[in-house]
Amino acid sequence: MSLVVTGTIGIDDIVTPSGHAEKVLGGSCMYFSAAASFYGPVRLVAVVGDDFPDAFRQTLHRFPGIDAAGLETRKGGKTFRWGGKYHDNMDSRDTLFTELGVVAEAPPAVPAAYADSRFVFLANSHPAVQLGFLEQLPKRALAVADTMDLWINTAKDHLLVLLRKVDGLVLNYDEAEQLTSRRNTVAAGRHLLDMGPRFVVIKKGEHGCLLVHRDGVCALPAFPTENVVDPTGCGDTFAGGLMGAIAHHKPSASQPADPDPGSFASVRRALVHGTVIASFTIEAFSLDRLTQLARRDIDQRYDQYAAMVRV
Amino acid sequence: MSLVVTGTIGIDDIVTPSGHAEKVLGGSCMYFSAAASFYGPVRLVAVVGDDFPDAFRQTLHRFPGIDAAGLETRKGGKTFRWGGKYHDNMDSRDTLFTELGVVAEAPPAVPAAYADSRFVFLANSHPAVQLGFLEQLPKRALAVADTMDLWINTAKDHLLVLLRKVDGLVLNYDEAEQLTSRRNTVAAGRHLLDMGPRFVVIKKGEHGCLLVHRDGVCALPAFPTENVVDPTGCGDTFAGGLMGAIAHHKPSASQPADPDPGSFASVRRALVHGTVIASFTIEAFSLDRLTQLARRDIDQRYDQYAAMVRV
Repeated sequence: MSLVVTGTIGIDDIVTPSGHAEKVLGGSCMYFSAAASFYGPVRLVAVVGDDFPDAFRQTLHRFPGIDAAGLETRKGGKTFRWGGKYHDNMDSRDTLFTELGVVAEAPPAVPAAYADSRFVFLANSHPAVQLGFLEQLPKRALAVADTMDLWINTAKDHLLVLLRKVDGLVLNYDEAEQLTSRRNTVAAGRHLLDMGPRFVVIKKGEHGCLLVHRDGVCALPAFPTENVVDPTGCGDTFAGGLMGAIAHHKPSASQPADPDPGSFASVRRALVHGTVIASFTIEAFSLDRLTQLARRDIDQRYDQYAAMVRV
Repeated sequence: MSLVVTGTIGIDDIVTPSGHAEKVLGGSCMYFSAAASFYGPVRLVAVVGDDFPDAFRQTLHRFPGIDAAGLETRKGGKTFRWGGKYHDNMDSRDTLFTELGVVAEAPPAVPAAYADSRFVFLANSHPAVQLGFLEQLPKRALAVADTMDLWINTAKDHLLVLLRKVDGLVLNYDEAEQLTSRRNTVAAGRHLLDMGPRFVVIKKGEHGCLLVHRDGVCALPAFPTENVVDPTGCGDTFAGGLMGAIAHHKPSASQPADPDPGSFASVRRALVHGTVIASFTIEAFSLDRLTQLARRDIDQRYDQYAAMVRV
């Protein structure tokens, strides 16, 4: 079923204990859609400046599932730029610089052809902008949003309005604590449910993720690896795998069609796909690992993961 | 098969964000053996002073699987005392006081009747003391040790000797980093294998555990709960469930007998038991939850956990 993602496409400078990369393709929308495209078509809504390199457009087209008709190129505009430096533990980072460029201007419009989208992912941006996107997607069956500490600090009122309008929220461990003042992750998740959504997915990086849903709780580990090169985009590709797997779930004997894509069973099943695809993202800078990835690689690691957690 | 544990039995004062408990039964050997006793007999080797309360002996006897013939009561000696205060996140704590008492004296002897023990767990104590116990257990098929930051700092040479003589090591996340100078947990685990053992289990508290074995790697989540009262003894009961499940594994059609109890499959399977029993320990102070626990409670939560991680 039709999946759309709104968010940023940008150009990143990244320093990690493994090395550095300059002026590489990034942005939440880019990572999300690359990951989701392994599961089926994904429509993206984002804006770049006319300085956006052709080479990056070509990278975008290396993911055949991505429908880039919603990518606006704004004349005279500057593409979003971000620089980050990861600490030794790869779990935390400092932002070195942010140049908002076109992201500080009016958001891109959702193309008319996308208005029938059933599955919506609002990647991280100002919650007022996320609310604006949501209004343009009236046919949605399932809407999930990401957010970040910046908006919790500076736009909490808008964020609280958004939380009453989405089915799911995806956020980091420390952000869940920040938003709820609860240290225990399960308690933080339950408190977030009281704010509106049916489910919350708390991302814990190398420690995996926690799903707190009105109908159940599930913790899953990350795929354990030593091959940690660049965590940038892991959270976004996690969400891309999650939403791609929900939107394009293929019923089978063991996994029948779910009339409710936001059910505990549906989201829980999709978490594994998010976990697996994020484990590839971290193995190289930017989208370098994802552009080399085939669906069979995902399936193989999925099977490894399944064997690992089999009880 | 015969399982023996060496370590401390003591009297604890505990403060957590949920409350406090004074002069309660504790100690690594106590927690371990209580947990292991749900799987079959467990022999304990520990020493207390003659101030050790009768009420605590009665608690010990509430676990029918515990063979306490190896509990020495030393005349005129003082029982080990420990006080700890947990921080808001329940993941870290400060030691308020330690009164070693009889633990600072000669260690208890392993009873002659225990010399044929096949499965050995050396709960946390000075590695030279652990080595002394190991020498008294020549029939061992599988020996696993725990350790702590204190010994990594003050007795590293002895610890390195010990690591060459045991099959497995169980330790905390931060201790693994401290001992190996590696932030990545998988890398830390592999480095520890280079020091001798066939496998290392890294405990990550609320984030679950990681098994790094010569034949594979496995991460498992903790059982997610809001009901966190007192983390004391969680690591020891985790180890008790792990070793109890290995030592007393009952072969079934889906889980046949393993000729090698230290194999990746055997240890991986047992991790789930450790995880489940630790999730009960945390629900009350001291051994209060374990004394109320029935095997069917463990089996029920095991099934819940299995359903949670089913892929």
